[in-house]
Amino acid sequence: VVRVTLLTDFGTDDGFVGAMKGVLATEAPQALVEDISHQVPPGDVAKASRVLGRYWREYPPGTVHLVVVDPGVGTPRRGLALEADGRLLVGPDNGVFGRVLSEATVWTAVDLSETDLLPAPSSATFHGRDWFAPAAALLAEGAPLQALGAHVMDPMTLVGPEPSRVGDWLVGEVQEVDRFGNLATNIPGDEAERVVLVEMMGTRIARHGTYGDAEVGELLALLNSDGLLEVAVRDGSAARMLGAGPGTPVRARVRRPT
Amino acid sequence: VVRVTLLTDFGTDDGFVGAMKGVLATEAPQALVEDISHQVPPGDVAKASRVLGRYWREYPPGTVHLVVVDPGVGTPRRGLALEADGRLLVGPDNGVFGRVLSEATVWTAVDLSETDLLPAPSSATFHGRDWFAPAAALLAEGAPLQALGAHVMDPMTLVGPEPSRVGDWLVGEVQEVDRFGNLATNIPGDEAERVVLVEMMGTRIARHGTYGDAEVGELLALLNSDGLLEVAVRDGSAARMLGAGPGTPVRARVRRPT
Amino acid sequence: VVRVTLLTDFGTDDGFVGAMKGVLATEAPQALVEDISHQVPPGDVAKASRVLGRYWREYPPGTVHLVVVDPGVGTPRRGLALEADGRLLVGPDNGVFGRVLSEATVWTAVDLSETDLLPAPSSATFHGRDWFAPAAALLAEGAPLQALGAHVMDPMTLVGPEPSRVGDWLVGEVQEVDRFGNLATNIPGDEAERVVLVEMMGTRIARHGTYGDAEVGELLALLNSDGLLEVAVRDGSAARMLGAGPGTPVRARVRRPT
Repeated sequence: VVRVTLLTDFGTDDGFVGAMKGVLATEAPQALVEDISHQVPPGDVAKASRVLGRYWREYPPGTVHLVVVDPGVGTPRRGLALEADGRLLVGPDNGVFGRVLSEATVWTAVDLSETDLLPAPSSATFHGRDWFAPAAALLAEGAPLQALGAHVMDPMTLVGPEPSRVGDWLVGEVQEVDRFGNLATNIPGDEAERVVLVEMMGTRIARHGTYGDAEVGELLALLNSDGLLEVAVRDGSAARMLGAGPGTPVRARVRRPT
Repeated sequence: VVRVTLLTDFGTDDGFVGAMKGVLATEAPQALVEDISHQVPPGDVAKASRVLGRYWREYPPGTVHLVVVDPGVGTPRRGLALEADGRLLVGPDNGVFGRVLSEATVWTAVDLSETDLLPAPSSATFHGRDWFAPAAALLAEGAPLQALGAHVMDPMTLVGPEPSRVGDWLVGEVQEVDRFGNLATNIPGDEAERVVLVEMMGTRIARHGTYGDAEVGELLALLNSDGLLEVAVRDGSAARMLGAGPGTPVRARVRRPT
Repeated sequence: VVRVTLLTDFGTDDGFVGAMKGVLATEAPQALVEDISHQVPPGDVAKASRVLGRYWREYPPGTVHLVVVDPGVGTPRRGLALEADGRLLVGPDNGVFGRVLSEATVWTAVDLSETDLLPAPSSATFHGRDWFAPAAALLAEGAPLQALGAHVMDPMTLVGPEPSRVGDWLVGEVQEVDRFGNLATNIPGDEAERVVLVEMMGTRIARHGTYGDAEVGELLALLNSDGLLEVAVRDGSAARMLGAGPGTPVRARVRRPT
């Protein structure tokens, strides 16, 4: 069974996702299509890269991940197909695969524009339907990656800011706010494990193991399921309580190694 | 593989869609169910007709498209099953199939109320679960259309206003606003190809090939992926910038044929 | 064909649902995954229980219903697997299965924490991915319920208030507001059938058969598709018109048996 997953910024209101699914059903009739999200904020390539980072390797090898967050549609940006640790990925070359490229043990990429297997897009504004979905269908049907285009050595990546160290403190920032108002920072887990105290927006926040270890309504810092330091409120929204969001500075006190 | 697609105005908050999917799983266990959208504005039959227009023919023949946007549920409006260019469709007879009927090369329709194959709906308010999903399941399982009811020659259609011509200008209106704030007009593509300039809300708007051809924040007019003239803003919302929406007048200057 | 359905409060913005689907695809590759909703209000166990009540038995026996609305994640609350009238269910033991347990003819429950078949969760905050999805995959692959843990006799239930009777009046309350602004009460259908008049927020509301029997914009009371008395407005929102919501009192006059 081959699965094709879909991640877009189309919303579901207008039927654009339906058009892509119809193309997949026609051109890869045996594939199972699974929605990841169509609610990526319009054109937010960095967010799409982080979301993709959460599931691409949970799916088994052979899965095709189709990602259409494409603010440059119709301009000469390239289209890519990738194989990364056995998973296949299709989408625009705008950084949306940045997280995958940094996590994969091995990867190969090809330039979709350099192939005769795919039609020239029939619209200037809907390459998801006219170009990327047909490419994903070819891969789902077993076409080899190399048949889809010439090798690309320099796919675009997006590199976010890294936390720095100042004495016993790590200084980083909020990277993402999730639906629950939890504030994920850019402080990675190997550091986070030694964190004893966090400061954000002038507030000192205690380290806990999980949400339920704090009192209802209390701020806490914890290691989240992406392996990052996170600031949260039990049964509430840390984003709202602190007035914090992407880019808000965070300082974390680490225990000295003994 | 037979697919059943779902388009409703139910939202996903309440489990109504789940009930329909459960009926399909029970009565057509081999079918693959694919969501199109459950976010059609409540009762907006015209919007549902346009959304359906974007995907019904992208799916292969044999696909069953189930559409439940049904403000008249429980009143004596008919239920329909259609075959149009090989695709099968089920839903209320309220105009939701208007776009399909105008686009199909051939179509046949039957009246679901004139059959013994379907149970009388067990609720007065949820025909999606009790009547339309069972009808879709029968078609997915291979029942012939004729078995589901008597022929209908006059399914309801919705006909929107057509643009008119005044000298070198086409005069139309905005038909739909999509998630990105793009304003799709009722000016069709064969005309749109000769458009050189657009006026809306007192603003003159230049014609471009695609979003990326304009400057960031600049208004542009282009031919969209439905084949209609559209007004957009690069990386922004034309609806918000112009204060425009469905029904807003638009004038387009066309190049004279040489 | 085995189906696994998903009900969560994760939203779809962040890719958490994608991670769970990836685990299912890896560990139960033949199963078909169907979304019910990811829009349960964060942590609203009572709402999730009502939503689950709408579809769990519409699906055929053998279906696996995975429910992750889990405000107590990481605390010592149990994880459950259930068999109820032939359907299989997996989720936290926090009342989310209350409706199922009250509706099922027969049920058996086991405690997921008492098994070696499942890994210890690798995160403290994402048991959907690390614990419940693997359990659902085992059931979808045919593992017997008993293999997943020791019997539980006392799964948590949530019991809402029951309506009371005062002379010819039933006194109850609004239980749920749906997407259309319809107000579902806790007055059950066998009583509702004898209701002739309803009072809510000081307004007298006539009994009708279905929405279309009232005038546009008129309030009406009817028997809804869950078998409960409901207050609605034709083509409008009763919640907005009356300023009512969960907990709003309602009185219903019943016809005396003759």
